[in-house]
Amino acid sequence: MTTTVEVINALKRVMDPEIHRSVVELNMVRNLVVGDDGSVSFTLALTVPTCPLSSQISADARTAIQALPGVKEVNVSLGAMTDEERNAVLGISPQPTAAHEIKRVIAVMSGKGGVGKSLVTGLLATALKRAGYNVGILDADITGPSIPKLFGVHGPLKGSETGIEPAQSRTGIKLMSINLLLPDEGQAVIWRGPMISGAIKQFWGDVQWGILDYLLVDLPPGTSDAALTVMQDLPINGILLVTTPQSLATMIVKKALDMAQKMNTPILGVIENMAGFVAPDTGKHYDIFGPSHADEVAKQAGAPLLAHLPIDPQFAERCDAGEIETLPTEVLNTCVEALAQKQPETV
Amino acid sequence: MTTTVEVINALKRVMDPEIHRSVVELNMVRNLVVGDDGSVSFTLALTVPTCPLSSQISADARTAIQALPGVKEVNVSLGAMTDEERNAVLGISPQPTAAHEIKRVIAVMSGKGGVGKSLVTGLLATALKRAGYNVGILDADITGPSIPKLFGVHGPLKGSETGIEPAQSRTGIKLMSINLLLPDEGQAVIWRGPMISGAIKQFWGDVQWGILDYLLVDLPPGTSDAALTVMQDLPINGILLVTTPQSLATMIVKKALDMAQKMNTPILGVIENMAGFVAPDTGKHYDIFGPSHADEVAKQAGAPLLAHLPIDPQFAERCDAGEIETLPTEVLNTCVEALAQKQPETV
Repeated sequence: MTTTVEVINALKRVMDPEIHRSVVELNMVRNLVVGDDGSVSFTLALTVPTCPLSSQISADARTAIQALPGVKEVNVSLGAMTDEERNAVLGISPQPTAAHEIKRVIAVMSGKGGVGKSLVTGLLATALKRAGYNVGILDADITGPSIPKLFGVHGPLKGSETGIEPAQSRTGIKLMSINLLLPDEGQAVIWRGPMISGAIKQFWGDVQWGILDYLLVDLPPGTSDAALTVMQDLPINGILLVTTPQSLATMIVKKALDMAQKMNTPILGVIENMAGFVAPDTGKHYDIFGPSHADEVAKQAGAPLLAHLPIDPQFAERCDAGEIETLPTEVLNTCVEALAQKQPETV
Repeated sequence: MTTTVEVINALKRVMDPEIHRSVVELNMVRNLVVGDDGSVSFTLALTVPTCPLSSQISADARTAIQALPGVKEVNVSLGAMTDEERNAVLGISPQPTAAHEIKRVIAVMSGKGGVGKSLVTGLLATALKRAGYNVGILDADITGPSIPKLFGVHGPLKGSETGIEPAQSRTGIKLMSINLLLPDEGQAVIWRGPMISGAIKQFWGDVQWGILDYLLVDLPPGTSDAALTVMQDLPINGILLVTTPQSLATMIVKKALDMAQKMNTPILGVIENMAGFVAPDTGKHYDIFGPSHADEVAKQAGAPLLAHLPIDPQFAERCDAGEIETLPTEVLNTCVEALAQKQPETV
C-alpha cells in the first residue's frame, strides 16, 4: 500500500516550472488523502489561479504519483494561494513595511518601448549620484527588466524581517528589480496584471530603501497595469517623459502624456534620446530616425525639453558591459539642475 | 421641485473623459431616483469596475446635478457594466462571431519594446502580399498600436450585425488596430489586463477577416496579458522572434523565447533588426548597437535566422509617412519562402 510519505517524496521531485522549486517546498500540496484502495487525491494551490502553467504542474504531479507502486487513481484539484502565501513564495516579506525616507519619487516614462527609458534612468541616477545625492532605482518593468544589466549587478538579494535589502551598484546607487530575484536573467515572468501590480507595490513598500534624495522609477512601455499602479499607488512627484525623433514613437509618447494628464501627474520635463548619429570617424551627423519632434512633445506637455542624447555606440557598449556608471553625464546637467530647483513641496 | 428630465439633461453634459461621450448616451446612469425632498440618487455603471477615472466622472456628475435648482442631496453609487454593455460602448459587436477562414496565424514577438516588431510585421505583410497571398494584420498592441500609422490608414471602421469590417491598406492588406477605433491617435488607452485581453479576443473573433492565407499578429512588448491571450486563446501556428544586436535586448528577447517554449508555441524563425547602419554617403558600416547576437538567439530557439534588416533612414521616413508598402522587401524573401514551405498542418 502507498504511504503518505511516499507520495510526498514523489511530489518533492515535481518542480514549479517558473519558480524552480518543488511543489512540496512551495507548500502547494494541500488536503492530501491517500486511500487504502490505491487512490491519491490532493489540491495544488497555485501562485495565481489563472497560472498558465497549471496544466503542466498538475500533469507532472500526476505522472510522479502514478509511478508509485500500488497507486490506482490520482485526483488533482487546482486551487490558489492567498496573497500572504504567494508573497512568501516570491521571497517577499509583506508584514512590516520597510522603513524608508524618500524625498522625491520620479517616474521615467515614454509609453513606447525601446526609446531608452532605462538608459535615461540609469544615466540620470549616475548624474544625481555624482552631484552628491542619495539615489535609488525601482525597476517597474517586471516582464522586461533592464536596470540590473546596465549596472552589472546580480542577485540574489538578502531579506530580513523588516524587508528586502536592495542591491547596490559600484557607486552606491540602490537598485531593486525582478531580475535580482530570478535564478536566470533570461527567464520569462509570465504574469497577468494583478501580479505585476503586486510586485511593483512590494518593490516600493517592502524594500529597505533607507534615506534617499531621489528614487527613480523605470516604467515599462504601455499605459496599462504597471503605469496605473505607479501613478495610483506610489507617491510620484512627477514624470520625466522620454521620446525619440521618429514620428511613430512621438505618437505613442503622446499617449503616455495623455495618461499622465488624465491622472493629474505632473510632467517635469522631456528628454530626447537617439537624437541622430555622429559617425565617430568623420564627425558627420546623420538623422537616422528622422528629424526631432521633441519640441512639439515638450509644448504639448507644457514642460521643458531638458536633454538631447545622441546615438553613441560607446553607450550601447558600456551598457551591455554593465558599466553605465563610467559614461559621461554632462548631457543631463540641465535635468539634474531642473530637478534640484524644484523643492519637494512643489515638484 | 427637480424633475427626472432635468437631472437627465444635466447628466447629458457629463462626459466620460476617455470615451468622450456623455454618461447618458453611454447608458451609464442606472436606478435614478429623484425624491420629493430634493434628493437625487443613482448608480454610474462604469466600463471597468476599477476605472481609474471613476472619481472624476462621479465628481463631474455630482457637480452637474447640484447646480440644478431645488437639489439638496446627491448620492452617486459606482457600478460596472456587463461585458455585453461594455462591448456595445466600445462599438464592438459581440454577438455572431464573424465568418472567416484563416489558413495560418503567425505572431511577431520580441519581448523587448522598440526593436521593430511592427516594422517587421508590416514589411512581412507587404512581402507576402507581393508574393500573391491574402494577408491581414491583427495589432495586438493595445496601448502602443503602430500598425495603422505605418500603412497610413485611419478609422473609423464600419460595423454590421456580423462583425467589424477591417481597414484595408492601399495594396489590400486587411488591418485591425485599437487606433482605428479611437477619435484621436494620441489618446491613451488606460486599461488593465482583462480589458486588453478582451480587445484582442474581439479583434480575432468579431472582425470580418474573410479568407486569408496569413494573419500576422503584432504583439506588444512583455510577457504579460497580451502575449498570454494570444498564445492561449488564438490558434497561433508559430512565432517569429524579432531581436536587435544589443546584448541588453537579447536578454529580454530570451524571456520571450522562454515564454513561447513554456507555452509550447513553436518558433518559426528569428529576424534581426537594426543590424548596423550604412552611411548613405560613404557606404561605411557602423555597428551602432554593438555586434550581432542573432545566431545565439536562433540557436537557443532551435529555429533558423531568416533575415538581417540594417538601419536605413528611408525606412523610418517611409514608415512615418504611412508608406511602408513602398519599401523594398527582398530582405524578407527567405522568410516568405520559409513560411510558404511549411504546410498549414506542420507550421
